[in-house]
Amino acid sequence: MKTLVAGGAGFIGSHLCDALLEEGHTVVCVDDLSRGTEENIGHLKECEAFRFYRSDVREVDALKTIFEKEKPEYVFHLVANSDIQASAKSPEVEYQCTYTTTFNILQCMKEFGVKKLFFASTSAVYGDKRGIELTENTPNLSPVSYYGAAKLGSEALISAYSYMDDIQALIFRFPNVIGPRLTHGVIYDFIRKLNDNSSRLEILGDGKQTKPYIYVKDLVQAIVSMKESEQTGVRLYNLGVDSSTSVTRIADILCEEMELENVEYCYTGGEAGWKGDVPRFQYCLDKIHAAGWRAQFDSDEAVRMAVKHELGKLE
Amino acid sequence: MKTLVAGGAGFIGSHLCDALLEEGHTVVCVDDLSRGTEENIGHLKECEAFRFYRSDVREVDALKTIFEKEKPEYVFHLVANSDIQASAKSPEVEYQCTYTTTFNILQCMKEFGVKKLFFASTSAVYGDKRGIELTENTPNLSPVSYYGAAKLGSEALISAYSYMDDIQALIFRFPNVIGPRLTHGVIYDFIRKLNDNSSRLEILGDGKQTKPYIYVKDLVQAIVSMKESEQTGVRLYNLGVDSSTSVTRIADILCEEMELENVEYCYTGGEAGWKGDVPRFQYCLDKIHAAGWRAQFDSDEAVRMAVKHELGKLE
Repeated sequence: MKTLVAGGAGFIGSHLCDALLEEGHTVVCVDDLSRGTEENIGHLKECEAFRFYRSDVREVDALKTIFEKEKPEYVFHLVANSDIQASAKSPEVEYQCTYTTTFNILQCMKEFGVKKLFFASTSAVYGDKRGIELTENTPNLSPVSYYGAAKLGSEALISAYSYMDDIQALIFRFPNVIGPRLTHGVIYDFIRKLNDNSSRLEILGDGKQTKPYIYVKDLVQAIVSMKESEQTGVRLYNLGVDSSTSVTRIADILCEEMELENVEYCYTGGEAGWKGDVPRFQYCLDKIHAAGWRAQFDSDEAVRMAVKHELGKLE
Repeated sequence: MKTLVAGGAGFIGSHLCDALLEEGHTVVCVDDLSRGTEENIGHLKECEAFRFYRSDVREVDALKTIFEKEKPEYVFHLVANSDIQASAKSPEVEYQCTYTTTFNILQCMKEFGVKKLFFASTSAVYGDKRGIELTENTPNLSPVSYYGAAKLGSEALISAYSYMDDIQALIFRFPNVIGPRLTHGVIYDFIRKLNDNSSRLEILGDGKQTKPYIYVKDLVQAIVSMKESEQTGVRLYNLGVDSSTSVTRIADILCEEMELENVEYCYTGGEAGWKGDVPRFQYCLDKIHAAGWRAQFDSDEAVRMAVKHELGKLE
C-alpha cells in the first residue's frame, strides 16, 4: 500500500515510517524539517520504498502537488506543534501547524479521493478533568491549552469530512510519548539541566504531576496493527498504558541511570508545571484493549528506557 | 458599556445591535457586508452610540486597529458562514469565515485585554444524534457538516483562551433562527419558489425533517439578559424552544398565509434535505430555563411570524 506520512521526519513520524516500511508498504514522507530532522530519517534514504519531500503542510498548493504525483492510499497525519509549553506563548503556532495542517490534508484527501486517514490526537482535548477516569465518551471536552483546542478542532473537522466525503478515520488520543528521537519534554529538560549542574535539579511545579508515559515503539505498533478495519466512519481510541509516573519519580529514575547521588530537587511549586499543563490524568483503556491492543511496557519502564536511550545506554 | 458586535450587520447581529443600543450601550459594529447588509443597520446610522466599520474579520490586522481605537469591553462574535447548505460545496468557507474569524477575535481579545465574549454556536456541533435529547453534557460530539465542525473547533478555542487568558465567555448553541432580515433557509426558499410557481412546491427530503425554530427577537433577548454574570470561565447553553416544526408544516403555514390552495408538494425524497443536514433534533432546555430564560414564542408561532414578515404582513 502507498502511504503518506505527514510529519514523517519527526519523533513519532519517523518511527512510523520505519514500521510501515518494515511491513512492506511504500512510504511518502512529507516534512518541513522544522521540528523533524534529516537525522531521524537518514537511515531510510537508500530504501527504495521510501521517498522524502521537504515541504510545509501549511502550504496547501505544495501538498496538492505531492498528492497528485504520489496518489497515496492512506494518509498518516502527525504534523503538529508538539510542544504545548512553547505554544502557550504563541497560539498562532497551533492555528497554523496543528489546525491548518489538518484542514489542508483533509482538503487534499477530498480532492484526490483518498479515503483512509490516521490522526494523532491527544489527551489535551479533554482539558483538566482531575478525578475522572477519561473514556472516549467523557462529555464536556474543555481544553485548557491552545494545543488541545487545535487538536479538538481537528477531530471535529475529521468527523465532518468523514461523513461528507466518506473518509475512514482512525484517531488515537495520545498520552505523553517518549523514546528515541525525543525532541523536548521533561526527560529531555532534566538531562540538559543535570548536565549543566549535577548537584541540583529545578523541577517545575510540585513534582506530583503524574501522567501515563508510553514508549514510542508501543504506540507505533498500535497504529500499524489497527490501521485497517472494515468499519466506516471515525474510530476513536484513548491510547496509553495503565500505569503512570510522577515527575519526581522521573527525576529519581534519571538520577539512578546517571549514577548521581544526593541531587537536590528544587520545586518551583504549584500543581501544574506551567499554565495549560494538566497535572494529572488517567485514561480508561477498555475500548482499545477490547480491540486487541495492549502496551508492552508500563509507564515507569517506558521512562527508564527513554532515559537510557537519551544517555546512550541503549541502541 | 462599549460593545463590539462582529457580524453586526447580519441577520441576528443587527437585531443584537438594536437591543444593545436600546439598553444604553455603545455599539461598534464590524461587518464586511458579505452576508450582512447596509439595509439591516440603515436605521442606526444617525444614532450617536452606534458606529460602523466595514471590515473583514478574517483580516487580523484590520481587526487589531479597530480594537486598539475602540477599546471594547465586551465582544459579541456572530461572524460565520451561516448557510450550511452552501458551504457543503466549499469547506474553505468555514475554515475562513467561521473558524479563522474566531481565532482572530480571540487573538485581539488576548492582545488588548478584553475579558468578555459572547459566541454564537449551533446545534450542528452535536452531529446527527437522532433519538437522543441533546443536553450540554451529551458526549461524542460528531459534526456531520463543515459548518458544525468549524463551530465546534471555535468552542474549543474559546475554552483554551478562557483558561489561558482569563476570558469570561457565554456560548449559546442556536437552533434554527428565523424572523425579520432572514437571508436564507427553508422559509426564504419556499417563498421564492411559490412566487415563481404558486401551484407546485418542491420540498427537499421527505418533508418530515423536524426542528425547533426560534424567533430572532427571543434569541437576542436571551443574549442581552444573560450577557453579564459573576461566573468565570465558559458558560454554555443550548438555546431554543420546547416545540418544533416539520418542513411540511412550514409549507402549510406558508400556503395559509399566502392564501394559496391545493399547492402540490413534490418531495425530492430521503430523510435529510441535503448531505450534512441533521433531519431531526430536540434540545433539553433545562439548563437555560434554570438560568431564568424562556422563549416567548413556540416554534410554530415563530414560523408564522417569520412568514408574515417575509410577506410584508408584519412590521
